[in-house]
Amino acid sequence: MLTGAGAGKGNEQQSRTAAAQGPGSAEQPDRLMQLASKRIAIEGVDPEIDGGRFPAKAVVHHPFTIEADIFGDGHESIDACLLFRPAGTQVWSEQPMEYLENDRWRTTIVFPENRLYEYTLAGWRDLFGTWRKEIAKKHAAGIPIVLELEEGRRLLDAAQFSDRASKADAAEIKQVLQAFSLLQNDVERLGLLSSDAVAVLMKRAAVRTNYSQYDHVLEVFVDRKLAAVGAWYELFPRSQTDDPSRHGTFDDVIKRLPYIRDLGFDVLYFPPIHPIGQTNKKGKNNSLTPSPDDPGSPYAIGSEHGGHDAIEPKLGTFADFDRLVQAAREHNLEIALDFAIQCSPDHPWIKSHPEWFDWRPDGSIKYAENPPKKYEDIVNVHFYRQALPSLWYALRDIVFLWINHGVKIFRVDNPHTKPFPFWEWLIGEVRAQHPDAIFLSEAFTRPKVMKRLAKVGFNQSYSYFTWRNAKWELEQYLTELTQEECRHYMRPNFFTTTHDINPRYLQNSGRPGFQTRLILGATLAGTYGVYNGFEICESEPVPGKEEYLNSEKYEIRTWDFDKPENIKWDIEFINRLRREHKALQDFTNLTFYNAWNDNIIYYGKRTADLSDFLLFHVCLDPHNQQGADFEVPLWEFGLPDDASIEVEDVVTGHHFTWHGKYQHIHLDPYYKPYAIWRLIPPGAPR
Amino acid sequence: MLTGAGAGKGNEQQSRTAAAQGPGSAEQPDRLMQLASKRIAIEGVDPEIDGGRFPAKAVVHHPFTIEADIFGDGHESIDACLLFRPAGTQVWSEQPMEYLENDRWRTTIVFPENRLYEYTLAGWRDLFGTWRKEIAKKHAAGIPIVLELEEGRRLLDAAQFSDRASKADAAEIKQVLQAFSLLQNDVERLGLLSSDAVAVLMKRAAVRTNYSQYDHVLEVFVDRKLAAVGAWYELFPRSQTDDPSRHGTFDDVIKRLPYIRDLGFDVLYFPPIHPIGQTNKKGKNNSLTPSPDDPGSPYAIGSEHGGHDAIEPKLGTFADFDRLVQAAREHNLEIALDFAIQCSPDHPWIKSHPEWFDWRPDGSIKYAENPPKKYEDIVNVHFYRQALPSLWYALRDIVFLWINHGVKIFRVDNPHTKPFPFWEWLIGEVRAQHPDAIFLSEAFTRPKVMKRLAKVGFNQSYSYFTWRNAKWELEQYLTELTQEECRHYMRPNFFTTTHDINPRYLQNSGRPGFQTRLILGATLAGTYGVYNGFEICESEPVPGKEEYLNSEKYEIRTWDFDKPENIKWDIEFINRLRREHKALQDFTNLTFYNAWNDNIIYYGKRTADLSDFLLFHVCLDPHNQQGADFEVPLWEFGLPDDASIEVEDVVTGHHFTWHGKYQHIHLDPYYKPYAIWRLIPPGAPR
Repeated sequence: MLTGAGAGKGNEQQSRTAAAQGPGSAEQPDRLMQLASKRIAIEGVDPEIDGGRFPAKAVVHHPFTIEADIFGDGHESIDACLLFRPAGTQVWSEQPMEYLENDRWRTTIVFPENRLYEYTLAGWRDLFGTWRKEIAKKHAAGIPIVLELEEGRRLLDAAQFSDRASKADAAEIKQVLQAFSLLQNDVERLGLLSSDAVAVLMKRAAVRTNYSQYDHVLEVFVDRKLAAVGAWYELFPRSQTDDPSRHGTFDDVIKRLPYIRDLGFDVLYFPPIHPIGQTNKKGKNNSLTPSPDDPGSPYAIGSEHGGHDAIEPKLGTFADFDRLVQAAREHNLEIALDFAIQCSPDHPWIKSHPEWFDWRPDGSIKYAENPPKKYEDIVNVHFYRQALPSLWYALRDIVFLWINHGVKIFRVDNPHTKPFPFWEWLIGEVRAQHPDAIFLSEAFTRPKVMKRLAKVGFNQSYSYFTWRNAKWELEQYLTELTQEECRHYMRPNFFTTTHDINPRYLQNSGRPGFQTRLILGATLAGTYGVYNGFEICESEPVPGKEEYLNSEKYEIRTWDFDKPENIKWDIEFINRLRREHKALQDFTNLTFYNAWNDNIIYYGKRTADLSDFLLFHVCLDPHNQQGADFEVPLWEFGLPDDASIEVEDVVTGHHFTWHGKYQHIHLDPYYKPYAIWRLIPPGAPR
Repeated sequence: MLTGAGAGKGNEQQSRTAAAQGPGSAEQPDRLMQLASKRIAIEGVDPEIDGGRFPAKAVVHHPFTIEADIFGDGHESIDACLLFRPAGTQVWSEQPMEYLENDRWRTTIVFPENRLYEYTLAGWRDLFGTWRKEIAKKHAAGIPIVLELEEGRRLLDAAQFSDRASKADAAEIKQVLQAFSLLQNDVERLGLLSSDAVAVLMKRAAVRTNYSQYDHVLEVFVDRKLAAVGAWYELFPRSQTDDPSRHGTFDDVIKRLPYIRDLGFDVLYFPPIHPIGQTNKKGKNNSLTPSPDDPGSPYAIGSEHGGHDAIEPKLGTFADFDRLVQAAREHNLEIALDFAIQCSPDHPWIKSHPEWFDWRPDGSIKYAENPPKKYEDIVNVHFYRQALPSLWYALRDIVFLWINHGVKIFRVDNPHTKPFPFWEWLIGEVRAQHPDAIFLSEAFTRPKVMKRLAKVGFNQSYSYFTWRNAKWELEQYLTELTQEECRHYMRPNFFTTTHDINPRYLQNSGRPGFQTRLILGATLAGTYGVYNGFEICESEPVPGKEEYLNSEKYEIRTWDFDKPENIKWDIEFINRLRREHKALQDFTNLTFYNAWNDNIIYYGKRTADLSDFLLFHVCLDPHNQQGADFEVPLWEFGLPDDASIEVEDVVTGHHFTWHGKYQHIHLDPYYKPYAIWRLIPPGAPR
């Protein structure tokens, strides 16, 4: 990688004079010269989100690949480079682009910092490259090359005095030219000037004729790794108690940290921890007739004790919370908070900022509703009229408040019901000071809305994974997510369950279904999550609904995580595998392979160099044993169909050899509904 | 279509005051307000070529469809419109967008003038639409609606005094509000306010809340029809003689006009008609040893008689040429000239503008070459250094010169060996004064280069059609051209033959192959062309090459177009069909259907309303009879597989009925290698 070179403009543009203008009618020399300054066509840049309107996403120290169509007129050689710089700085660094085929160029870059970068592309005519190619053809055809040799010499002479040549390069070119002048023989002269060494020297030093920069400067936000790779665990702090009549506290949560760490999670997420309103409080199972003891939904934020900038007193104080954050850190866990922009009727803002709410003709505030449904314990703010911009600033400052208490991860509740520009502004403001902040979009809505939220800045997104159960729909959805343009800006967080979603599949699957969904979530996406109770296969629904009976949203519950039907071994196992294998720390490195049974999904994850190559068979039928012939992807290693390959059963650690492309798998969901294999590349150490 | 409405901004953005700013850190109120002004997301606009860098193409009086993803946050109703205006004007006209599904909106517009237009999109929150939807649900659920009725009344009241309401609308709203105040019953009040009449009124007059305009203003160049639909015929004027020793003249061409008109062509194209250089003149069959009588290649432009602004004296004078242009017009033919930017060594510019050429170390000019090939009779100009911009102006003025002599169509020779910015500038300059000028790109090169030339402004493009002979490759190529994004900017001109290309397929096919390629070219593309001799199945090659033996490029030839193996009937027939059928005056209205034989290609062309629906079977095997079962596309008319449909054999005029979806076709290439059917929609007149 070269640095600091950048705008090495060609010399062809500079030679025009005003006197050179022709005799034609009203001239627009500016437009002509502006067009002429981009002789090399640069188009089809990937990634380029909505014409550069939004940044792409990358991860620090993780390869980021940029491609473009770059070509000139005629048959001459061109060359091209990537230009990049930290946003807000002036000087471009550059990195060569590599030619693929069909006018496509590519380079892969690794960004060193968690921050916003800018990038663009440049191309130029490579006169020396053209000369080298053509003189070789002529010489091979027996055509005299005296004039061509002199032309080549002149190109070196120009490079010697160009702005691009370093002192050392200029000196080296001078030496070449001196050696050239001493040679008498055309063949020897050709050998010298068209040598690889001179080509390398000229690639560095030669004038870049018709240097043309792409029209757009594009952006890429480079996240820290946890934005792309992590395992999440959700719990309600108030339920961390052994007695439903006793409200759990932050100190109770601290006691749970070793358990969560031992399961191998990275992020511990809490629903809102703010004071809960009393007016229209919800009772158990979402009833409108609560008992005085019912705690209410934590999503009804705000009471006499404060709003989004306060803590529910029964959980503890800010000092207690700070201790929890610190203790979590010591267990290698980061705390994620819920950011739910909605208010109980008791929220302090209703009195202090009545202009942020929708008032009805009778002087009441409009409740949240999705007609004919009503959410009586919640009123929504609005973001325009008298709330613009004062509410925007207030909400941003709430995020800053929690960041100051050590929270860098925010699971944002229903972001799709708040304006897109608000999120774009808020995340931009936060990121400018805290590039390590992570926002997870909890939007279950129409696909384009979910993608827009990812574009405007959310680092992660809830997804449709929770409802994709059949093989064809998993393959289709994962192909979209990992192959289509959205891979550049949308990172799904594959939650298997949330406190709001008790998926129908799990209501009927028993333990094997939980194992299946665990393995799928943890290996198909870089980030996945579970809601507590998942490890003991909790699935009792409100009849006919995808909701939990006796939901923690409306009551304090206690849990026995040692129930015999638990899948804690599987969770600990797969989280360990995720940490140990580079192939599982990427998202787009997924390939589906052939297994001839619609109840067995079969896929591979691997590093680009194939050194880490895992295969997964997962049984989607939680009730019956399933078997399938499948193809071992020998071709990925360049092996013929009848080759053998060493393989490790990752679950048992056993090593053996697969002979030939076709093998058979048998999965018994009551034993273990998945199998995971590590392919050992030919010649690699076992 | 409404006009002049345009920027009816919402009222929500305007209410902020500086005092409303929050207490946070360094504020960027400008960025916040700029983002906030676009609450409605508008993305995925189609067409939008390279982020709006290039204009799309349309045809005057021909439907042009624009789609976009348009959506807001939350669940409220939105509405959207297309904004358009002639480029260079200020006031937007607007046309409603229609909702499709999945947040996609569409409208189809017909532009009235041959010129450049601008367009963009706008969306806004439709508060009245939301109100109407929600009150209906609540009323249906038995929820009281007193407050909701008052809220609706207030929306009407606001509309009454909005900028958008015309006087008539305001008066009508006032009447509605008066009627409303007299009604006592909620149900009657609901009936009034949520009536369709009030909805239509409010769509016109209501405040457009959060009116958001798309980030880009896009362009579309609206061509005259001949840019998209036309049949071309190519001849060498100097060969319009009955004696190869007598050089043909423009007057000889005039005598040929009735013949070309009777065949049904629209455009008559000549290779260069400029003075031909003597130095390094080529002899017959591209030899380097010409006899003094050899005329030389017309592509070696320039002699003592002048250059690109002159006429070869043996052809005639400018007065003769003007007569020819006028006579052609009287035969409904337009003349197309070749624009070949290259010079014989005798071109006057070499002395008058030595700075436009590449001089070698020995003081010679570099010949055109593609090493090791050399084109000794041609030298190329270059476009940068001292030629920028003087050469650009000179070339533009040459185009203007020929336009002043009545020529509006230019077949541009090898445009891919000249800079893209030159073409973008030149075509823009010409078009600003002559929007009816048409440029055809004769570029046979890599796909992205060909597409780039179309993007920078060429109205038509030569294509790979000439080398696509098999069914699968024709289907694949036509699917790309008619379905992919390039359909918005690249219009192929399907030449079956040119003076440079004697396709291998025709060298071996005999007469049936010429009929096949005629029908394919004339019906698969809006524009197609033939080089003279095609009508008599001329195909004698330089052995082993795709070139004609005794090519007219290097000698004067005479032709007998009455040879018995001619296909003039087919040409006249298909050109008449192209004029008579609207379905053949479009390009993207192509569908391939199933015929179970790889030697029979089967496709349909139709108008959007299905009133004109043609089916084509073309035999690709020029030597053997072929038969195939095929599917009648009954489903296109919503008919079941066992329905019957009336059909006309367009070649014979016979009418009959197809019973059921499966039919059989038999084609004998020696009788007629194609069949063309007109489907008569159920209930339509025969």
